[in-house]
Amino acid sequence: MKAVSLKRMKDLETKLIDTFPTIDFVFTKGVSEIDQKDQQDLDIIFGYDGKMDQSFLENCPNLKWIAWYSTGVNSLPLEYIDEQNILLTNGKGVHAKQMSEFIIAYILDDYKKMRTSYINQQNKYYDSKLTGVRVSGETILFLGTGSIAQYTANIANAMNMEVIGINKSGHTVDGFSKTYALNDLPNIIGEADIIVNTLPETEQTIHLLSNEHFKLMDETSLFINVGRGTIAEEKVIVEALKTEEIRHAYLDVFEKEPLDKHSELYTLDNVTITAHITGNDRENMSEVTDIFINNLNSILNKNDIIENEVDPKQGY
Amino acid sequence: MKAVSLKRMKDLETKLIDTFPTIDFVFTKGVSEIDQKDQQDLDIIFGYDGKMDQSFLENCPNLKWIAWYSTGVNSLPLEYIDEQNILLTNGKGVHAKQMSEFIIAYILDDYKKMRTSYINQQNKYYDSKLTGVRVSGETILFLGTGSIAQYTANIANAMNMEVIGINKSGHTVDGFSKTYALNDLPNIIGEADIIVNTLPETEQTIHLLSNEHFKLMDETSLFINVGRGTIAEEKVIVEALKTEEIRHAYLDVFEKEPLDKHSELYTLDNVTITAHITGNDRENMSEVTDIFINNLNSILNKNDIIENEVDPKQGY
Repeated sequence: MKAVSLKRMKDLETKLIDTFPTIDFVFTKGVSEIDQKDQQDLDIIFGYDGKMDQSFLENCPNLKWIAWYSTGVNSLPLEYIDEQNILLTNGKGVHAKQMSEFIIAYILDDYKKMRTSYINQQNKYYDSKLTGVRVSGETILFLGTGSIAQYTANIANAMNMEVIGINKSGHTVDGFSKTYALNDLPNIIGEADIIVNTLPETEQTIHLLSNEHFKLMDETSLFINVGRGTIAEEKVIVEALKTEEIRHAYLDVFEKEPLDKHSELYTLDNVTITAHITGNDRENMSEVTDIFINNLNSILNKNDIIENEVDPKQGY
Repeated sequence: MKAVSLKRMKDLETKLIDTFPTIDFVFTKGVSEIDQKDQQDLDIIFGYDGKMDQSFLENCPNLKWIAWYSTGVNSLPLEYIDEQNILLTNGKGVHAKQMSEFIIAYILDDYKKMRTSYINQQNKYYDSKLTGVRVSGETILFLGTGSIAQYTANIANAMNMEVIGINKSGHTVDGFSKTYALNDLPNIIGEADIIVNTLPETEQTIHLLSNEHFKLMDETSLFINVGRGTIAEEKVIVEALKTEEIRHAYLDVFEKEPLDKHSELYTLDNVTITAHITGNDRENMSEVTDIFINNLNSILNKNDIIENEVDPKQGY
């Protein structure tokens, strides 16, 4: 059985080779480095490379499993993966830890006016009247109630916030005081002080948020997007910020990435931009590899417990 | 009974007058506005004014109670207050809410490299490799285990941090996995990734932290001071930062406030300065007034339940 990586993995390579002596491992830096023979032979692809497309997969006749190291699978040819009955797993849960911390970082950066304090420090201006806002008592609405939202909800509850969520059916989730179905979005979106998008990119979520939704949000509200940039057209977000339908946005994901230098977002004062970094962490590679190892053990032992399986039809 | 304020209080003034028709309220902007007659007559002083000193109090022969609206009482002539047997209460607990949020804001600002993201945004530089550090799993040591530390410990636990504390006797406190006595400080200070001073200013805490303590701290550690600036001489902190005994400091309090424009702290890259603002909040006045009202009710009804009484001998 041949397993080809899309990343070099330092000492994790030795760990994999030692753990699975019967597997033929090939470690590469990505699809462009995989030679034709390996492509023909490989059973398993593991790692992450945004360049892996359908035409590459069409030349992998033996491929049975893609162990994707990211959580979002939207860059993959999901329809083809579904048709070919290829097993797809992802890194869900690993990135949720640091993403939940990042969401809280955004909220506190805004509520505690950290940017103003930083500018004051540059100017040696000691403004003891500068007054932030208490997060305690604020209502936070999560679009999506998956692992990222759940980790964050746990912290938000400790900060005495009111935690509500929206998911497809409105099913209840631990840590959320109320959950609503996606259809209820227009009715509930105005009640939140903070709106956090954690939804994956699927047919239902692309351009889910329209101008109308931003108009329904409270004009003092904070919008945070760590899900996918396609949740709203960039021009819709720009318009909402320019017309002050919302007070501020923290955006880590964009409709087109990397964000273009000429994007109008860079010209606005009421937006904070980060470069799709909320999931980055030095431990990711090792922790997603642990999931890969568990799944590979399970497959070799004909045990059907597969962690983090993704349904290509659903996209998550 | 005459009660004189050290702050104007907008609609809270009406609330006080309506709640206590038998009390003669005088509302002023501070000690400089209190006329001689009121000073002679007053039984109660409530509010906050850094200019209230012993010579002012010596001219208040009827003073029985100072309802101090701040938490720290170190600017008051405590020995005189003790000798004269004047009741002293403070705002403890009210400021702890926002201070706990601010401590988490500092930690996340640092761990998630928010300042770098902000500078990148200014330069339209999209650095998707920028990698923060997970807070989860870090050890946070609180100097002082009072209400500020306890509120923060609750959030830190939800973020999966290891929470330890130091107090006078080492007595256990809910939310702390271990607590140590002040004498153990040199033995434990090197084990923390994050050290947060929340101690009040007392005889024991003035210049508690020496060069030696900073040398014992981990060189990658983060030092946060929201207690009082006198915990260490400014030159000791400057030295620790310049020689990189610690990685970074977040300072909200200073040995001399306001911080002098010429302070060497302003020349260092590895310090974040805020202007004694972590306790500021729009709700403070109303919430400390609620404590004042409860205590005033208790006194008028000869009930001995007094909230937030401060022992002038201890200083907290």
